[in-house]
Amino acid sequence: MSWLDVAPNSHFSLNNIPFGIISRRGTDATRVCATRIGDNVVDLSVLEAEGLLSEAFGDEGSTRRFFAKPTLNDFAALPVETRDAVRLAIQSLLSASSSTLRENAELRQRAVLSIDAVETHLPLTIPDFVDYSIFPAHALGAGRAIFGPDTPLPPLFGRLPMAYNGRAGTVSVDEVIVRPQGQIRAFSPGREVSIGESRALDWEFELGAFVSHSTKPGTALSPSSAQSHIFGFVLLNDWSARDVQSLEMVPLGPFNGKSFATTISPWVVVPAALEPFKAEKDIAPELGLAPPPEYLQEPSSAKTAYDIEFASDPSTAHLVATANYRPAAWSFPQLLAYQTFSGARLQTGDLLGSGTISNDGPRKQGCLLEMAKGGKEPLEVGGEQRAWLLDGDEVVFSARAGPEGSGVGFGELRGKVLPASHLQAA
Amino acid sequence: MSWLDVAPNSHFSLNNIPFGIISRRGTDATRVCATRIGDNVVDLSVLEAEGLLSEAFGDEGSTRRFFAKPTLNDFAALPVETRDAVRLAIQSLLSASSSTLRENAELRQRAVLSIDAVETHLPLTIPDFVDYSIFPAHALGAGRAIFGPDTPLPPLFGRLPMAYNGRAGTVSVDEVIVRPQGQIRAFSPGREVSIGESRALDWEFELGAFVSHSTKPGTALSPSSAQSHIFGFVLLNDWSARDVQSLEMVPLGPFNGKSFATTISPWVVVPAALEPFKAEKDIAPELGLAPPPEYLQEPSSAKTAYDIEFASDPSTAHLVATANYRPAAWSFPQLLAYQTFSGARLQTGDLLGSGTISNDGPRKQGCLLEMAKGGKEPLEVGGEQRAWLLDGDEVVFSARAGPEGSGVGFGELRGKVLPASHLQAA
Repeated sequence: MSWLDVAPNSHFSLNNIPFGIISRRGTDATRVCATRIGDNVVDLSVLEAEGLLSEAFGDEGSTRRFFAKPTLNDFAALPVETRDAVRLAIQSLLSASSSTLRENAELRQRAVLSIDAVETHLPLTIPDFVDYSIFPAHALGAGRAIFGPDTPLPPLFGRLPMAYNGRAGTVSVDEVIVRPQGQIRAFSPGREVSIGESRALDWEFELGAFVSHSTKPGTALSPSSAQSHIFGFVLLNDWSARDVQSLEMVPLGPFNGKSFATTISPWVVVPAALEPFKAEKDIAPELGLAPPPEYLQEPSSAKTAYDIEFASDPSTAHLVATANYRPAAWSFPQLLAYQTFSGARLQTGDLLGSGTISNDGPRKQGCLLEMAKGGKEPLEVGGEQRAWLLDGDEVVFSARAGPEGSGVGFGELRGKVLPASHLQAA
Repeated sequence: MSWLDVAPNSHFSLNNIPFGIISRRGTDATRVCATRIGDNVVDLSVLEAEGLLSEAFGDEGSTRRFFAKPTLNDFAALPVETRDAVRLAIQSLLSASSSTLRENAELRQRAVLSIDAVETHLPLTIPDFVDYSIFPAHALGAGRAIFGPDTPLPPLFGRLPMAYNGRAGTVSVDEVIVRPQGQIRAFSPGREVSIGESRALDWEFELGAFVSHSTKPGTALSPSSAQSHIFGFVLLNDWSARDVQSLEMVPLGPFNGKSFATTISPWVVVPAALEPFKAEKDIAPELGLAPPPEYLQEPSSAKTAYDIEFASDPSTAHLVATANYRPAAWSFPQLLAYQTFSGARLQTGDLLGSGTISNDGPRKQGCLLEMAKGGKEPLEVGGEQRAWLLDGDEVVFSARAGPEGSGVGFGELRGKVLPASHLQAA
């Protein structure tokens, strides 16, 4: 229990303590590191300056400041033991049994703000963004929506995580995106090629993971040693213009169809907060996935997945889809082992996407491509039809760890579609 | 003519004046911006601090410093008029008619260094790296080496520049690379799948272009307006593990097979220095390329290619290949127009690769994949055979604008292959 008000269904209870970047509305907009509890935000740079976190930072904190910074990169680069100790110290200051912050009205007023009094910003500078496709149901469903109902899973799906490099510079916490234009191939019968605004705009609901401390070039991590290199997780919308992507995919993979915008939720939930929700992967045996090669293997009983419930609600269309994270074929530590095996270094702030989170069954998919079968079977919802997103649609993602009331979740990731007329020629 | 010694065949005459980042050997390794002339290097932070560039910087330079910085990003973000004026001021200080620097021994000693007295570093921080494939001979040759001699050019080659996002965090000016390991599919008969070090390591000789000032999200550049967004050019080696790439390409494009290392030359040659070597594109009409769509068109007589002669010399094998840049199907401004049409922003320091520079004819290709036909026809050179690179091989690229003695070139980009035993497990 915290001495601050936290609603019973809040994603941000005392058990969470995520990290983010805020600025105060109506001021000089200086960015600092913060945490969120209930509908309050705590400015961590104030607690740090008061020396309330010194013991947790240890030697690191005696000469340097980590929270009076416009990004979390310096904090994320610390060893996991220090990061965890600092989070516990914050948790302690906010717990009902502590009076340090609660009973100092002047300090409390400087440090504790209403969520409505702040703006949130990109939590880390992102050197590289890699997007994976680790859900068998999505790999199958997307393939079948495009190539027909008999399309099999790629034969190496269980041995080789599918991935491409994304565009790090267009990742943001913006709550609007502008419909992109491009060279497109229509999804309607005829599949005409033309130039113009995308008519097949889609969302992809993913989990994103940020890298904590960097590796030296030429260092190959194991899944086990990679665990401490995960700083934390956010919700991620890999906005996709399917008709732009359609022309580009062969032979070099997705480019302009996905590079125009990727949005993430502002609060980074750390592994320690998700520890109680670890679970074994839930992979249907009938998929017959080949086992991973030795260098990517985890103990078969390892709890390297998470019991996280995802819900996407494109509110204009009153459509809710849900999915659980457990059917992920790979853990993020496995993905870091995969991409460092070549010798490629990791840098603090590197972002990895899980790929679309889809389960089996109706309304269990993380994108329209799968649910509306590539536009062939538009969804009827609330009296309207949706094959793809329309201008003005707002997509709302949320995700919660474990059961209702667990107190740990990601809050909301909102994104509203503005018309292509907002693009400017220059 | 400069008052400094410049050999007649130097790539770095008074006509060049490129920009780079140096540190003095055997000191605290502070990085500063510099130019190169002959085998001399000039520390531009010294000239700036002395006020010798103030007039050229104008208002921008009255309160800020641009060259006492560890990267060129701040300088590159300036308007093209300022960048050009500063370069002209440097050129003027180094010309035989100027005595300001030449006759001040104390200043000269601080500012002018031998190339042997400095180390060079990555010239800009790179937010995003996009690699294209704009040479028809390469798109044809690589396709034929893999899929057979009847493979046609991709049908949309003239309408749609082929591209993928690369890994910005592994771009360096290092002169060694470590052979990567990965999940591989052998190029030998049988095409076995296995895990281990790459046996099909290749180079790709490209031209790289850095973005100067950024664009706002949602801004679509035209080829004409994109011109001033090019800061300058470097040589680029897109090291490629063909047997790793082979397993990954379908459906998401290249990833670990190219993400382990990309190396570039340290001196950024600016468009103003290459102005005399502009040329019309040299596209063989018999290729029958479709014309570009309207939004990517340049006037048909526009000199948007460059007469640049490239030479690659994997010195161990005594093999020299050459190619000219003029058969590029797209100019870099066209590529910037292509990738901003969606609304994706550009950031200062973004790097674009041209893709492998290949011409028609024997020994006119920029990679082994094409020259040794995917390993099927190893090259006999100096009594040795090369299907792919061996450990210890050193690849040396160079490129010169226009004829021998033009005084403008890129110097050398060297890369030596270290064995995979240099990889560390962690």
